[in-house]
Amino acid sequence: MKATILSIGDELLIGQTLNTNAHWMSQQLTAIGVDVLRHVSVSDKRAEIVGALDTAMADTQVILITGGLGPTSDDITKDVLCEYFGGALVFNEAAYENIRQIFNRRNREISEATRQVAFLPDNCLPIQNAFGTAAGMLFRRDDRVVVSMPGVPYEMKAMVENGVIPYLQSEFTLPLILHHHFYTAGVGETQLAELLTDFEKNKPADMGLAYLPSVGKVRLRLTLKGQDKADLQSRMQAARETVYAAVKAHVYAEEDIPLEQVVGRLLAERGKTLGTAESCTGGYIAHLITSVAGSSDYFKGSIIAYSNEIKQQVLGVQAATLEAHGAVSEQTVREMLSGALKVLDTDVAIAVSGVAGPGGGSEEKPVGTVYIGVADAEKSVVLRHGFTNNRERNIQLSGVLALVMLKNFLQDR
Amino acid sequence: MKATILSIGDELLIGQTLNTNAHWMSQQLTAIGVDVLRHVSVSDKRAEIVGALDTAMADTQVILITGGLGPTSDDITKDVLCEYFGGALVFNEAAYENIRQIFNRRNREISEATRQVAFLPDNCLPIQNAFGTAAGMLFRRDDRVVVSMPGVPYEMKAMVENGVIPYLQSEFTLPLILHHHFYTAGVGETQLAELLTDFEKNKPADMGLAYLPSVGKVRLRLTLKGQDKADLQSRMQAARETVYAAVKAHVYAEEDIPLEQVVGRLLAERGKTLGTAESCTGGYIAHLITSVAGSSDYFKGSIIAYSNEIKQQVLGVQAATLEAHGAVSEQTVREMLSGALKVLDTDVAIAVSGVAGPGGGSEEKPVGTVYIGVADAEKSVVLRHGFTNNRERNIQLSGVLALVMLKNFLQDR
Repeated sequence: MKATILSIGDELLIGQTLNTNAHWMSQQLTAIGVDVLRHVSVSDKRAEIVGALDTAMADTQVILITGGLGPTSDDITKDVLCEYFGGALVFNEAAYENIRQIFNRRNREISEATRQVAFLPDNCLPIQNAFGTAAGMLFRRDDRVVVSMPGVPYEMKAMVENGVIPYLQSEFTLPLILHHHFYTAGVGETQLAELLTDFEKNKPADMGLAYLPSVGKVRLRLTLKGQDKADLQSRMQAARETVYAAVKAHVYAEEDIPLEQVVGRLLAERGKTLGTAESCTGGYIAHLITSVAGSSDYFKGSIIAYSNEIKQQVLGVQAATLEAHGAVSEQTVREMLSGALKVLDTDVAIAVSGVAGPGGGSEEKPVGTVYIGVADAEKSVVLRHGFTNNRERNIQLSGVLALVMLKNFLQDR
Repeated sequence: MKATILSIGDELLIGQTLNTNAHWMSQQLTAIGVDVLRHVSVSDKRAEIVGALDTAMADTQVILITGGLGPTSDDITKDVLCEYFGGALVFNEAAYENIRQIFNRRNREISEATRQVAFLPDNCLPIQNAFGTAAGMLFRRDDRVVVSMPGVPYEMKAMVENGVIPYLQSEFTLPLILHHHFYTAGVGETQLAELLTDFEKNKPADMGLAYLPSVGKVRLRLTLKGQDKADLQSRMQAARETVYAAVKAHVYAEEDIPLEQVVGRLLAERGKTLGTAESCTGGYIAHLITSVAGSSDYFKGSIIAYSNEIKQQVLGVQAATLEAHGAVSEQTVREMLSGALKVLDTDVAIAVSGVAGPGGGSEEKPVGTVYIGVADAEKSVVLRHGFTNNRERNIQLSGVLALVMLKNFLQDR
């Protein structure tokens, strides 16, 4: 089964918006055994959209379209598709109710332009938009499925996960694809590859092993494709054992959950509360932790001590310590840790101080120098890191490595 | 003059590599007045590459191709292009010399596979690769230009900047293209469209107006294309005035800089220091502000008061207030504001308390209810918002709207 991913929007073609939608949808389709044959991006012009549709309809069965569903005059996808599939726009109660609820929550009047969004082709299966006003539209022609969705990533993602994928799996027999993922953090791709040299040498030819790196993390993906489920599963299980044995020190999950959630579970299981004292990360670690629903069960709060006054007056870091060793030092981070435990009254604390850059570097402490510490009442650990000269990356990397430290700290207790 | 950007590589279609090349090349072509008509990504298969080329040759004059130039057997782009344009592969001294120097620097032997990379079609204009082994290839057919480049971003970028762009500008007369952007926040696409109804009605047919939404923000883009620079500039200036007059209340920039940087500039200009007291945003606002280099000049720090104890013990929120009105209330946010001003000793403070969700909602305060406040020693403003049931979005939206409030607060002082 082959697919085309069609992205509509001038903003893509003038290079104003990076097309992350096609990337993400490719991952979703590949995971259920649909081959993505082509990505195509075209402008919001009727002839372009129709031309791309004709090509896609000629050699692919699944066509996922994003973009051009907004209320403004440059959004023509709905009209074009309605006409292409020979339907007529009719007022859709459910779509309007969805819009009504969204506008009620915002205490706003529904304009005529917005009301028009509730008119949908009578020959499509509407897909509810959980997070926005524009509904998705699923059209069938013979064995082909064409789905139009908004370009707003989180609106599209919910539709793909809850509408499109289940529909494709129920309507078609897709080949069997088994994946097993290891989510690792705090270790590089090369180091992992070295740990897996033997496995790579001996693994069956039809088993895929991919390294998918992101800031501070590498996802390992094992892939097997076939028809005999039991056979695939037992072979995958065997491979899983071997790989896990080699890299387990760096694995934080074998399911797609964020590191911050893994750490949150550890805290909840142990009934420990957490707080952070952050300088160069500026609240990023607290943000990561609180991005997890239910984090209020174990996270109490943070002191973001960006200035030295706050390090002293709120966290109780000694002026003498700042004098002698500087704000970016092991000693300061140790005092930030004890300050956090005291002021926030938590069982465990994270503290970070570093030079995120681009300014503030010195011979002794160049940009990218970051001290990260974790402590409870009995024990504290502080490590020095030397990162890059990229501010954004330094902040992200500090966040990931702080969570890795906390994870190891909790597991060792 | 129209262009196709053709990206070749299975890694794009399975969603392993995000296609940043097409995005970047679009920016470069748009900037010199070449219309990018289409982005197409296909796999490393002869039929796919030839099919995509045929389509591109039919309606575009510039075709930029990346990928499939490596030394491995799955890299077939060079062979396919050589055949497509009826050439023959011949050994290229300059290309080989380039490879030799790179391998010398790495003290590595040149393998036979690598040596093959120095064979280039005799009917192309080679483009030197400053950072890698695979040379670029420029083919001409009548008025059409086809350029093949490696998929490695920094190798491709150097070729586009030093080879492709200068070639196109010297060989063709390109139109002039003018853009003007308004970056707005805290207002919806529909609301903006209503404010611009008259402008839309009266704007010249050749002027483009696009709405580019993201969480809490909408970017407005005006576009004019022609030959007479002075004429375009004066017409764009006139349009800019009209649009600005209609939407200025919501515009935070007319250049591509983040809202947090605009707010930072306002603080720096006024010599004001800032702190935040965050509950449901969990440090996200502090993170946004400190993502800006140099923010330590005006940002002192934050109290992330996720628990009520910290609201009371660190920020001094009254137990009676929490009792009577709850943590998510205007009264609590007002006390968080005065607490932040005092504890963090700043000129201005932001405070946020809300129900990010998915849990914690009530009849009176459903998920998405967020109180956001800004204050200095004399004045404080607190607003209630009703957002969605999406936790991530609620946090992001709270961050954007808090910064919008701070911007307006500072501009009104």
